[in-house]
Amino acid sequence: MAEIAGRTIPLYPVLYEDLVRCALAEDLGRAGDLTTDAVVPPSSRAAALISARAPGRIAGLEVAGAAFRLLDPDVTIEMENRDGSDVFAGQALARVQGPARPILSAERTALNFLGRLSGIATVTCKIARAISGHRCRVVCTRKTTPGLRALEKYAVRAGGGANHRFGLDDGVLIKDNHVALAGGVSEAVRRVRRHAGHMVKIEVEVDTLEQLEEALRAGVDAVLLDNMSVPMLSRAVQLSRGYAITEASGGITPENAADIAATGVDLISLGWITHSAPSLDVTLDISLAT
Amino acid sequence: MAEIAGRTIPLYPVLYEDLVRCALAEDLGRAGDLTTDAVVPPSSRAAALISARAPGRIAGLEVAGAAFRLLDPDVTIEMENRDGSDVFAGQALARVQGPARPILSAERTALNFLGRLSGIATVTCKIARAISGHRCRVVCTRKTTPGLRALEKYAVRAGGGANHRFGLDDGVLIKDNHVALAGGVSEAVRRVRRHAGHMVKIEVEVDTLEQLEEALRAGVDAVLLDNMSVPMLSRAVQLSRGYAITEASGGITPENAADIAATGVDLISLGWITHSAPSLDVTLDISLAT
Amino acid sequence: MAEIAGRTIPLYPVLYEDLVRCALAEDLGRAGDLTTDAVVPPSSRAAALISARAPGRIAGLEVAGAAFRLLDPDVTIEMENRDGSDVFAGQALARVQGPARPILSAERTALNFLGRLSGIATVTCKIARAISGHRCRVVCTRKTTPGLRALEKYAVRAGGGANHRFGLDDGVLIKDNHVALAGGVSEAVRRVRRHAGHMVKIEVEVDTLEQLEEALRAGVDAVLLDNMSVPMLSRAVQLSRGYAITEASGGITPENAADIAATGVDLISLGWITHSAPSLDVTLDISLAT
Amino acid sequence: MAEIAGRTIPLYPVLYEDLVRCALAEDLGRAGDLTTDAVVPPSSRAAALISARAPGRIAGLEVAGAAFRLLDPDVTIEMENRDGSDVFAGQALARVQGPARPILSAERTALNFLGRLSGIATVTCKIARAISGHRCRVVCTRKTTPGLRALEKYAVRAGGGANHRFGLDDGVLIKDNHVALAGGVSEAVRRVRRHAGHMVKIEVEVDTLEQLEEALRAGVDAVLLDNMSVPMLSRAVQLSRGYAITEASGGITPENAADIAATGVDLISLGWITHSAPSLDVTLDISLAT
Amino acid sequence: MAEIAGRTIPLYPVLYEDLVRCALAEDLGRAGDLTTDAVVPPSSRAAALISARAPGRIAGLEVAGAAFRLLDPDVTIEMENRDGSDVFAGQALARVQGPARPILSAERTALNFLGRLSGIATVTCKIARAISGHRCRVVCTRKTTPGLRALEKYAVRAGGGANHRFGLDDGVLIKDNHVALAGGVSEAVRRVRRHAGHMVKIEVEVDTLEQLEEALRAGVDAVLLDNMSVPMLSRAVQLSRGYAITEASGGITPENAADIAATGVDLISLGWITHSAPSLDVTLDISLAT
Amino acid sequence: MAEIAGRTIPLYPVLYEDLVRCALAEDLGRAGDLTTDAVVPPSSRAAALISARAPGRIAGLEVAGAAFRLLDPDVTIEMENRDGSDVFAGQALARVQGPARPILSAERTALNFLGRLSGIATVTCKIARAISGHRCRVVCTRKTTPGLRALEKYAVRAGGGANHRFGLDDGVLIKDNHVALAGGVSEAVRRVRRHAGHMVKIEVEVDTLEQLEEALRAGVDAVLLDNMSVPMLSRAVQLSRGYAITEASGGITPENAADIAATGVDLISLGWITHSAPSLDVTLDISLAT
Repeated sequence: MAEIAGRTIPLYPVLYEDLVRCALAEDLGRAGDLTTDAVVPPSSRAAALISARAPGRIAGLEVAGAAFRLLDPDVTIEMENRDGSDVFAGQALARVQGPARPILSAERTALNFLGRLSGIATVTCKIARAISGHRCRVVCTRKTTPGLRALEKYAVRAGGGANHRFGLDDGVLIKDNHVALAGGVSEAVRRVRRHAGHMVKIEVEVDTLEQLEEALRAGVDAVLLDNMSVPMLSRAVQLSRGYAITEASGGITPENAADIAATGVDLISLGWITHSAPSLDVTLDISLAT
Repeated sequence: MAEIAGRTIPLYPVLYEDLVRCALAEDLGRAGDLTTDAVVPPSSRAAALISARAPGRIAGLEVAGAAFRLLDPDVTIEMENRDGSDVFAGQALARVQGPARPILSAERTALNFLGRLSGIATVTCKIARAISGHRCRVVCTRKTTPGLRALEKYAVRAGGGANHRFGLDDGVLIKDNHVALAGGVSEAVRRVRRHAGHMVKIEVEVDTLEQLEEALRAGVDAVLLDNMSVPMLSRAVQLSRGYAITEASGGITPENAADIAATGVDLISLGWITHSAPSLDVTLDISLAT
Repeated sequence: MAEIAGRTIPLYPVLYEDLVRCALAEDLGRAGDLTTDAVVPPSSRAAALISARAPGRIAGLEVAGAAFRLLDPDVTIEMENRDGSDVFAGQALARVQGPARPILSAERTALNFLGRLSGIATVTCKIARAISGHRCRVVCTRKTTPGLRALEKYAVRAGGGANHRFGLDDGVLIKDNHVALAGGVSEAVRRVRRHAGHMVKIEVEVDTLEQLEEALRAGVDAVLLDNMSVPMLSRAVQLSRGYAITEASGGITPENAADIAATGVDLISLGWITHSAPSLDVTLDISLAT
Repeated sequence: MAEIAGRTIPLYPVLYEDLVRCALAEDLGRAGDLTTDAVVPPSSRAAALISARAPGRIAGLEVAGAAFRLLDPDVTIEMENRDGSDVFAGQALARVQGPARPILSAERTALNFLGRLSGIATVTCKIARAISGHRCRVVCTRKTTPGLRALEKYAVRAGGGANHRFGLDDGVLIKDNHVALAGGVSEAVRRVRRHAGHMVKIEVEVDTLEQLEEALRAGVDAVLLDNMSVPMLSRAVQLSRGYAITEASGGITPENAADIAATGVDLISLGWITHSAPSLDVTLDISLAT
Repeated sequence: MAEIAGRTIPLYPVLYEDLVRCALAEDLGRAGDLTTDAVVPPSSRAAALISARAPGRIAGLEVAGAAFRLLDPDVTIEMENRDGSDVFAGQALARVQGPARPILSAERTALNFLGRLSGIATVTCKIARAISGHRCRVVCTRKTTPGLRALEKYAVRAGGGANHRFGLDDGVLIKDNHVALAGGVSEAVRRVRRHAGHMVKIEVEVDTLEQLEEALRAGVDAVLLDNMSVPMLSRAVQLSRGYAITEASGGITPENAADIAATGVDLISLGWITHSAPSLDVTLDISLAT
Repeated sequence: MAEIAGRTIPLYPVLYEDLVRCALAEDLGRAGDLTTDAVVPPSSRAAALISARAPGRIAGLEVAGAAFRLLDPDVTIEMENRDGSDVFAGQALARVQGPARPILSAERTALNFLGRLSGIATVTCKIARAISGHRCRVVCTRKTTPGLRALEKYAVRAGGGANHRFGLDDGVLIKDNHVALAGGVSEAVRRVRRHAGHMVKIEVEVDTLEQLEEALRAGVDAVLLDNMSVPMLSRAVQLSRGYAITEASGGITPENAADIAATGVDLISLGWITHSAPSLDVTLDISLAT
């Protein structure tokens, strides 16, 4: 559950628990945690603090908590923070308490989820801030880690971004290859219009102003303005105003994002916020329970 | 299958096909590829070229190929390259041929695997090169993406690195928390020695030279020298020579890797080569088949 | 793969084979086909004809074929027809040939898929025909059989209908309960607009013309006109023209569909075409191969 | 758990929870319930009443309840009725209470199970009533929805019917095709007798009185009298009395069921009570909790 | 597929391939076959012979073959024998040919299936032979290895035995606990008769002749004569003749089986032929292909 | 969780619950427990005692308990013993209390796990005792039941044995086939050393003293002395002392184990303690609850 911009986004355990179980199994293998099982007596209890070692935006706290809970229901997790919050280096995220063995054995699984999702939220947030004076929003793409799409898209929202399509099935995006195979933008749009359901929006990728004009004439809902220079983008946004939502993509970085947003474009989309975000450095410090 | 340093590492499809099927399902959802199904006629055939848009080390070509093959067995894939190779920007990686629809619909799934695994291989390779004058090897950690550990560890090997433990169950690594809970390094090692199987090696994480000496006296197989300065590391390596394998970890970057390797340490381990490697930019260009 | 209105909809095996395997396992249990295994020698070969015993619209032929193929790859299936076709009673749909045992053992699984999906296509087609003079389209709902949504939605398309949302995640439909909990139509729309992605359309369920006007003022993409009389529906359609897509729902039958379509409404949606369609009567007749 | 004719049939959650989870995932997709998550605040609580909109026989209440419980354990379900009961239009079935979001998001999944299973129970019950003066019982077939056989067979029992075979593996039914491939009824029975286990009963499908006599001479446990006229059926029942259980099948409707039962036949079997039963109309009405 | 007593029992791959994949994954883990991948070059080809090291009855050859085929489709398997055959020590069972690596890596998985199933077939066969002069048959119980019931029951058939119930759901067996909870044999039978389907046979476990008489009066199909002495068993068989199938169980060994069979009992059932059968010693010998 | 030699080995439910669910499903099938559901009223409560009918070492009590708990959470299990204990014939292991139906229906699943795992622990313990005067340990192999490796290896530990490799991926064992394909022991070791990770130990199978010397010269961590006579084994152990861990395998029985251990060998490995251990006879006695 993330609290973002006054909205609370639920993340139901039924949708991620199998993934957490699979990650636990991936780490415990067939023999379990050889080190912990040999070194730590079953009666040892521990308290642990999960905290950030770098500043960032948090996502995945409940998923991380599930790693402990699913390994041993006697472990309790108390949240010190919630998804969607900004934290400073050293800030406490959650307290974990209970038998020491499962806390040690689930630690890496928990942190792997938390670090990756918070990493995505953090870079999304950085971009969102860079354009915060403009009405433009950050959106992600389908360039996500296989198996983690729902969680990574959630992390983008926790970072203050919005989600583009979740898959090939919940929106039409006519790309250059489709245009080429259909023989033109208008023909491609015409074919989609004949077949798509009434709840489906149509977006077209365009590289030139000529293609843009063709797309606008075809009445599409949105245009993806791919790899355009800032001046060309400005012109494209002007042409589209009142006719279609505009989305800029290609080569957008924290450095140039504000300039691009200043063109008045509605959305900027970035693949790297999911496929190349570095993990946020998170850690678990344990102490013997008193 | 990767060809690395004269060795060929097999990667059997039985071990990754379910993951590829799951990734395809994640993208196709319940309605399939709305755009392609509307725009592209079933009779269209296409040839596509997968290539790199940036220089790097390749990993995941067969996994990417499986995305097309599992969606439609009529699609054929011809490799132009193989895992473990270094490629320049623009270099061809594989040719995909067959009905146009499944090629378009599986494209993103294929590239998501290939980009992530090649990204990991690329940064691993960069570190491996930085230390190539030394006898030191790069190893990865358990900080991998949930669900992808086997593939990401494979990518590290394709990058010229070696693998540390695959999980908590195939090696003993006594960390600071274990030492604290056992009441000392020697007691922790003693407990492990009583319980672990004869095929299991023991490594201990040490922060100080005192801890190192205690570990060496305990006769461990390897020592993880955590966050030590270069001079302290040199001293630790000297102390350990002939007694234990030495592994340096903490804050290692392409810039300081050579200095660290110059201490004579056997291994440097880096979490970020799996958890924070940016994807390699790979692309698929399609053309109508003639 | 269905051929409908000049369009070919792919249905990739990767998306339904697990379901077919599960259905085979459900029928074969732990002991297999006691009768066939005792009565039919392994060397017996058979040819079988799948045909319709009642007129209807076909859907699910490839899914049915997969039941035989997955049980024994030596069974070959030759299609005499394809999904999306209309057939008369007695018309041949497919020929199955090969070892007699798997043909007998997979028969019921194959027919269960084919009968159910063709049943849905048939009633959809009946409604589609009833309104064929009008520009109105038939759409289905989320009232589908647990586990079969993708296949049943496909069957609706094969019947000449269109698909409404596939799930709660690919379109916004604000229903009476949402309106009640938000405190009004405009507030509900306002909340959605602040949070939903740019590819998502918004539809609102309205019961009265006052609610309709509020929804239109809120600028929604579509309105679901629930349980309105024909005159009221006409009025609602007039009010909405040019502003929102109109969808009529509630109590629509083959008898009154034309009258409702005559109001000019864009869509009529019917839950019963998926949840209460009777199976189409299909049969498999076997003969010893010569 | 259904209460039928003084017997309570357990339905253990371990056997259907995976199916309910799969149905929830099918509806929530990757993005969750876009509408509810945007419109309803997380603090909203709701009370909802599940009730019937048409008279019928109930089945599936606990399965429906599991949809809410598995999505959010904070939702509580209080049963107002139980499987196997007859309800009138408008009668309360269960009360659902808790956070409003999961109640809204699980509603359709819950009702899809409840409507389908109650629909099957309702038509089964109608047939059972039509023959209630006779000692004849209603039985279902293997013509069930793929994946739902156990639940649909349970619904038949909740409707007052009995179950024929659950699969190909828990009873021998020699059909026309088997007879043809074996070269006669007696040879088919002989083969089965040599091979089947001692707990397995043998039934043979017969179309003529000659076949019936051959089957009775072979000492089968039951005969399936296929598509016989009422007079022929009477004759068949007389011939079989004391020798074999008799089962009538083919073209049985609520209208002719009593006449068929009056022949003294032990069982009538109907495929359409599972494959073509219309859903029972069930609904969930929500109100804000006070 | 087993050839037993002139009958061929099919064993369709769709029913065991997932189990074989799971066993391969259990052995290959995340890192694969470290030894083979390091030692054997990918170009090495090998021919291997699977043979028995002890005399016995074979079961599981195709399952074993699937281990090689599923790991690498380039491995070919040629059967030298078939399930249901008796082999001497040293006899060839199958030849495996192809790339050396997958042959070595799948060896243990293949042999684990083949050894266990052949072990079961072998002890079953030994018992079957011990009683071969009598009309009595050997049957197994539900005391099977979790997850392997279908395969182990198949192995019993391959050994010349027959199968009792496959589960709690395909036959009624009233045991002592049921009798106690019902308050007597006749009451228990009465309850079953009111509720069970017409294809279900009823067997009752009896310890005394009084209980037997009560069971016979109740008209059950079979009686399980538990732990009776040979004279008492003879008496029980006489009492039951013409009324019920008789099954002896409890403490039956290869040594006393003939004496028990000589009482005229129809069946002897033994749990240990599945739960305690030693594996048959099978081996794979490899040679470099020429 | 097993208590063995002062150590407590955890066995987390997340790692075996799916297997228990699968075993319950395997027994309950689609129709459930026909007998219990017909005979036992839902209000009946029962208390049951699980006890051993033969002396042995216990393993699997929590797994057995999970069968009851997963079928019905109202069943409570109170342990009278724990894994790793030695019990006499008739000794109480656990008390099960709650509704009678699920206790009866889960009984066989529970006992199948408990009997098999305790059987393995019992024979392991017998061997361990036979060599208890020596510093030698018993280890198991990869000859385990498909799907149960983790549980069976756990049972070996509960029996007082140790675990060899869990799979092909957590240790290198160079066998005769590898040696043959590499062209010699030293070449095989050299290849492994170049490629294996630093946490991996190397063991080589040797048949002769010449091979042993070659292996020792190659500096391997352990040697598997296969099928050697006692005098030859003694000689091999002397040669290896201080250089490599020694493991004897091949033809070891409770009778000759002490002689073999007396050679000073470090480990004896036995495949039959997992693949051919007879189940321990365990039983559940039920009584009506008061």
